[in-house]
Amino acid sequence: MAVVGTGLVGTSIGLAVSRHGVKVHLLDKDEVAARTAAALGAGVVGAPDEPVDLAVIAVPPSAVGGVLAEMQARGLARTYTDVASVKAQPARDVRKSVDAPSSYVGGHPLADRERCGPLAARADLFEDRAWVLTPSETTSQDAVNQVFAMIALCGAVPVIMGERAHDDAVALTSHAPRVVASLTAARLQHGSQESFRLAGQALRDVTRMAVRDTGLWNDILQANAPAVAGVLRELRDDLTTLLTTLDDLSSAPQDNGSQSLEPMVDLLNRGAAGLAALQEWQAADRQAHVQVLVPERPGQLVRLLDVLNTFHVEQEDVVPRHSTEEGFSITFAVPAMRAGQIVMELSRAGWNAEFVDPVSGARKAEVCF
Amino acid sequence: MAVVGTGLVGTSIGLAVSRHGVKVHLLDKDEVAARTAAALGAGVVGAPDEPVDLAVIAVPPSAVGGVLAEMQARGLARTYTDVASVKAQPARDVRKSVDAPSSYVGGHPLADRERCGPLAARADLFEDRAWVLTPSETTSQDAVNQVFAMIALCGAVPVIMGERAHDDAVALTSHAPRVVASLTAARLQHGSQESFRLAGQALRDVTRMAVRDTGLWNDILQANAPAVAGVLRELRDDLTTLLTTLDDLSSAPQDNGSQSLEPMVDLLNRGAAGLAALQEWQAADRQAHVQVLVPERPGQLVRLLDVLNTFHVEQEDVVPRHSTEEGFSITFAVPAMRAGQIVMELSRAGWNAEFVDPVSGARKAEVCF
Repeated sequence: MAVVGTGLVGTSIGLAVSRHGVKVHLLDKDEVAARTAAALGAGVVGAPDEPVDLAVIAVPPSAVGGVLAEMQARGLARTYTDVASVKAQPARDVRKSVDAPSSYVGGHPLADRERCGPLAARADLFEDRAWVLTPSETTSQDAVNQVFAMIALCGAVPVIMGERAHDDAVALTSHAPRVVASLTAARLQHGSQESFRLAGQALRDVTRMAVRDTGLWNDILQANAPAVAGVLRELRDDLTTLLTTLDDLSSAPQDNGSQSLEPMVDLLNRGAAGLAALQEWQAADRQAHVQVLVPERPGQLVRLLDVLNTFHVEQEDVVPRHSTEEGFSITFAVPAMRAGQIVMELSRAGWNAEFVDPVSGARKAEVCF
Repeated sequence: MAVVGTGLVGTSIGLAVSRHGVKVHLLDKDEVAARTAAALGAGVVGAPDEPVDLAVIAVPPSAVGGVLAEMQARGLARTYTDVASVKAQPARDVRKSVDAPSSYVGGHPLADRERCGPLAARADLFEDRAWVLTPSETTSQDAVNQVFAMIALCGAVPVIMGERAHDDAVALTSHAPRVVASLTAARLQHGSQESFRLAGQALRDVTRMAVRDTGLWNDILQANAPAVAGVLRELRDDLTTLLTTLDDLSSAPQDNGSQSLEPMVDLLNRGAAGLAALQEWQAADRQAHVQVLVPERPGQLVRLLDVLNTFHVEQEDVVPRHSTEEGFSITFAVPAMRAGQIVMELSRAGWNAEFVDPVSGARKAEVCF
């Protein structure tokens, strides 16, 4: 194999496949980057003497077409893929400039870290993550299978998508969020020491993924401009509506009962619903709901939470629901395949535990008090 | 002590001071919440027979004045504080409606979690965190000292600030970021399953703190509307400028060399600088920079990273810098008070290690490749 471009992703691929005994040739115009990757164990520096089975072009989106044409011309490999987080623009470049497009399949391993460069690389960066491939009509089945083999060595899950569908999806799930992180972080440039003293989890979380590698991201946003603009325009319009509400409140702080609050309530509700949609998808297999009656004696709830902990039920998923004369009950969701055993073991330990239907329409967002 | 309002913050305070043997009375209009807090060990449900030393009013900002007046009228405590994340508006309410304002000192423990409610409470929620107090001219020294004692039991660090300065600071570091998280999460409400499959760290980080307790946050944003609007208006203006750039790129994708990219580059750079400012403040004690020469033999870099790991130097803080004939060198920053020992131990283990001046003006954001 060959990896052209030994940044975070290229180096991590080198580390992942090297574990399985694959010989990897590392190429980078930045000599320190290639030597660093080699020193980490991602492969050996320099081009192979003969064509390798597969070359991964791990360069920014706008450079994919040019580097691919160059590597094909020197006969680096029999098959090529790339890792750019935009797929339509590189595909257009490839169709324009590359002689043998059948040997190329577009790819994008989903593995965003806030850090970049080879030293942030990890052999397990792609484990259990999606790795999108966007084969075109001209791509040979051989090329796709070659890349499947590498994806398997990296422990990732292949996902076949159209270029446009991929670019729209990552605009929503990756590109726009990183712009939002940068927009928020930009407010901190002249933040006072006093403000920073009050910074907590919210600020850290929202700004952690602010773009550091501005050159690469300038390239990515340029290549996916229409899709990113679509997501950000909706966000901007919501923000403008919210600002009108906040300005109304600032000028008439006493007029609290008025209906001018509605847009703010609506936005917060939609945000909570969006977060719930994402988290429900991510927790799709947590479907059985269990209810346990907690006798109102000191220490009972703590004892129950300890037991649930041994079942890997997260405390944050536990919700108190009903209050009765005998005490109150809590509910929690567990993976369906483990629910039966958990209810049985709780009952055996003396708890009054049973399956319940999740309260219809109740979302986590609404049970806060 | 008494805690009025047993949500996340009220219950956590109860847990923290109960550890030290303080008797805590828990009051909440939601009976299940109070009983849950008591069952967790935060105190006992119900009002005390005689006035307690200190009552914490842990209710939303707009309710602080009313609840404080009510509790003073029934003689719940000799001293009062609150925990609302906005300070100017409640202080105005208190001055209007409360008979003995000298017994009240405004407070705000900085401890944002994404979860809410008593079950998310933790005794160590405030440990090593800032706890802002905003005493006014009428506040008695006795009241402030009483609250200092409770803050100490919670393991937090008191910070005295003006109400306005506090509200401006949290608008920047907490309120605006949570609105941004909600704005981003709102885009997901109708996200496709295919998009969610591609969701990674960036989306999770930026949306994790989206507001769930919309009632509370409606109240907070209303109470701090002018300051929050100030931060968000700057963000909106940056976003509008960026959208113009993205639209220009969408309509003329070939015209890449034009200067129309400048606003995008500028925004990303300001975001990186803002993030660096925050992280540098948070890492203010990491000041000594060490450089180590890495011989270019297989395994040397991995061996060095392992050693650095034992010194708790995070791999992500290690930066490769210079390339020479003998190999290349890396630099990293360590707490000044431990730097001497680290250089000595590295040297003793055979490494060529020395102190260096940080390259002037070089930021982490610029060393990515």
